[in-house]
Amino acid sequence: MSKEKQFVKEITDMTVDFPQWYTDVVLKTELVDYGPVKGTMVIRPYGYAIWENIQNELNRRFKEKGVKNAYFPLLIPESYMKKEAEHVEGFAPEVAVVTHAGGEKLQENLVIRPTSETIICQMYAKWLQSYRDLPIIMNQWCNVMRWEKTTRPFLRTSEFLWQEGHTVHATEEEAEQEAQTMLGVYKEFAENALAIPVFVGRKSEKEKFAGAVATYGMEAMMLDGKSLQAGTSHYLGQNFAKAFDMKFLDKDGTLKYGYSTSWGVSTRLIGALIMAHGDQRGLVLPPVVAPIQVIIIPVAAHKGGVTEKTEEVAAKLKAAGIRAEIDAREESAGWKFNEWEMKGVPVRIEIGPRDIENGQMFVARRDTHEKNSYALGDVAAIENLLCDIQKNMLEKSRKLRDEKVVWAENLNEIIKGVDGNFVKAPWCGCRECEEKVKQSASATTRVMTEDDVSGKTCAICGKPAKTVVFFARAY
Amino acid sequence: MSKEKQFVKEITDMTVDFPQWYTDVVLKTELVDYGPVKGTMVIRPYGYAIWENIQNELNRRFKEKGVKNAYFPLLIPESYMKKEAEHVEGFAPEVAVVTHAGGEKLQENLVIRPTSETIICQMYAKWLQSYRDLPIIMNQWCNVMRWEKTTRPFLRTSEFLWQEGHTVHATEEEAEQEAQTMLGVYKEFAENALAIPVFVGRKSEKEKFAGAVATYGMEAMMLDGKSLQAGTSHYLGQNFAKAFDMKFLDKDGTLKYGYSTSWGVSTRLIGALIMAHGDQRGLVLPPVVAPIQVIIIPVAAHKGGVTEKTEEVAAKLKAAGIRAEIDAREESAGWKFNEWEMKGVPVRIEIGPRDIENGQMFVARRDTHEKNSYALGDVAAIENLLCDIQKNMLEKSRKLRDEKVVWAENLNEIIKGVDGNFVKAPWCGCRECEEKVKQSASATTRVMTEDDVSGKTCAICGKPAKTVVFFARAY
Repeated sequence: MSKEKQFVKEITDMTVDFPQWYTDVVLKTELVDYGPVKGTMVIRPYGYAIWENIQNELNRRFKEKGVKNAYFPLLIPESYMKKEAEHVEGFAPEVAVVTHAGGEKLQENLVIRPTSETIICQMYAKWLQSYRDLPIIMNQWCNVMRWEKTTRPFLRTSEFLWQEGHTVHATEEEAEQEAQTMLGVYKEFAENALAIPVFVGRKSEKEKFAGAVATYGMEAMMLDGKSLQAGTSHYLGQNFAKAFDMKFLDKDGTLKYGYSTSWGVSTRLIGALIMAHGDQRGLVLPPVVAPIQVIIIPVAAHKGGVTEKTEEVAAKLKAAGIRAEIDAREESAGWKFNEWEMKGVPVRIEIGPRDIENGQMFVARRDTHEKNSYALGDVAAIENLLCDIQKNMLEKSRKLRDEKVVWAENLNEIIKGVDGNFVKAPWCGCRECEEKVKQSASATTRVMTEDDVSGKTCAICGKPAKTVVFFARAY
Repeated sequence: MSKEKQFVKEITDMTVDFPQWYTDVVLKTELVDYGPVKGTMVIRPYGYAIWENIQNELNRRFKEKGVKNAYFPLLIPESYMKKEAEHVEGFAPEVAVVTHAGGEKLQENLVIRPTSETIICQMYAKWLQSYRDLPIIMNQWCNVMRWEKTTRPFLRTSEFLWQEGHTVHATEEEAEQEAQTMLGVYKEFAENALAIPVFVGRKSEKEKFAGAVATYGMEAMMLDGKSLQAGTSHYLGQNFAKAFDMKFLDKDGTLKYGYSTSWGVSTRLIGALIMAHGDQRGLVLPPVVAPIQVIIIPVAAHKGGVTEKTEEVAAKLKAAGIRAEIDAREESAGWKFNEWEMKGVPVRIEIGPRDIENGQMFVARRDTHEKNSYALGDVAAIENLLCDIQKNMLEKSRKLRDEKVVWAENLNEIIKGVDGNFVKAPWCGCRECEEKVKQSASATTRVMTEDDVSGKTCAICGKPAKTVVFFARAY
């Protein structure tokens, strides 16, 4: 975490109180506000614009994988939730329940979807007839609700926005492959759109999705060394197919259960962006998802030609597909610099009378604070700069992250290590050892790696290791 | 309604049973299916793709008007609903209520938003400080819930998707203007994107939104002469501002209540598209919102070069921004023709060995059933054809509609007229006359026109007329 002196007075020093820094940043940059119902959030325009960019980036990638968007109902009959035994156990404690509607008590209670496997499998079972209908690959963008005790904007809220993909396949291999493919899409998206490097891998039995055969997760390191689960992809086997009688007539003329998957990312990703890239001045947004990529500030705007020139430059940038805006408000230039730095806009352009005389514009980049003059209206230079910022942010994050991955051979090293780092340790795979780490280090297993474990012993119990796993404290 | 002989066997003849024709079309074209909870719908990929196109078209228009998207919570404290007297009266009977969450009974019941004026005004009241913060112009795309007794896919469902814009202004004039401006956006969108001509105007007191000072609506005529309310824009005056203490410090140093508006369109628009343009063969979709604009069908695909040529033409069309797809399935060409006609794809291209020999492609348009040969891969010709179809569909709808607007001087003429038409009649403006028409003709006032009424008398009671209004049966 940067030791740079606190810059914007109203934001708490991140080295002193990181959680408070986070809260200050999300509220003061107007990404979000607290909703009136406990645990809910209002996503304000600046935050929602990030979400729209995330949606666009993901929709493009989904389409390439043959995903079709659809929309399934919000309310799920309570009885559906109970059809898959592990699923109900996992989600029942945190659902919101509709008991009355249209002025009457309902015959059956309805739950607000915490996730939609049950209702979607019910519909798939109706639609699925023959092997010709497979694979089914759909996604929905929607709101879901999980009643949480402790909440924080974006990271954990009662209601949040997400996408949930749900697929059905004829074979185990194909479904397993689909879960892996979508995990790969998430990883590539996280790295290239969000500039956040991630570790991906299988989750432990304890950490897997309620009702899954296997859950694959991607874990992003935040600036405080804690982990944020940024996306998951589940191989569901025939668990939901059997619970919802989701069968198809195969080529060989026999009825078979399908194999399903589900995968999702949510508005948590905005929280990840903030805590992976932010600094003492506030947000630092990667250009690909930044609502405003370039802010143009007229200096001494009352002087002849300044307003016209800023508008000319803005128009040029917009024509090139760059999200550029002019801040023509009455406030001082200095006030505006702080404002847009806090809001994490990747590039700031200042244009004043002297710049115009020299045929130049003054350009400041948010990530490195470097400043340079470019030829006035040089669109290509700004395009290159945005590319460079995107690349630099990923590299910087990766370097920072890799420095904070430590190796542990025993429980003490794990306990010491998880204080600000991800800990890699050999593990026997049993739940007792996982619990022991949780009790003594407040850390959980994040994802299992593919690392070679031959000859290694579990850092907790000393028995032969089955995997090398990441332990970390997590959001 | 077209008398053309029923073509696709499974679709009911629209001249015999229009409601059943509608149900057949929405289900068989896989736009939608019934959800498991009564009154809910599942929007399937083909239907959802139309909705996404509607969203894109509207978002572009909204952006030009300075609208910013945001997201507000799904659940509203029951007490909020009660703050505006008329609002609660209108919506309380049809809300769904969450009484339990996280395994416990809630201290206060929460309603699932039927519309979000209350929760949004609560937030605006918190954010709004000074005249500098005005106007506030936000929109959200979301799901809402209104527990309805009688439901039909897209037209009236317990849960539906919509956009709701909510604005606050410093003056009455500005807010009134905003309500009108957004009505204008809707009208232009309905005509140019959906190819549906609409009548716009103010709603009667009886038909206005619960809590509004004035509601402006746009009414579209369906093929059976009934009206579908396709969008509304409300001037809310200070009703919600006062209920939620939404005040700002004006330039003159005094605290004033803001003036607000709200406006929305929903997935009903998909129902409007079906019933305004459909025919005996199924859907007829206007190119601007059609999920697939051009379907390419290889004829005798096993013969040399056919597959390659279809792919080449598809690639060319896609590169020009046309939503083109190839149907390479095993089914016969004839089966595919019927399938895509039913699904309303604007243009069908057939490419077979003889076409390739002649350097041609065979092109059929859905709206007029005209068929022509064009030079193989002539993208400009297809672009022109799509433009022409869009234009023709609007003109055809307008002509059909204008023929079905009749004038009435008395109640008998209204009763006779509303059977398959919109009736224009002078009206005194009183609720008794409105009720009388409803009782005797099952028709309601739709919107008031700007027509001159001097010297005219109310068609129902004979008193001096205050306006010329549209009466119609409505969805």
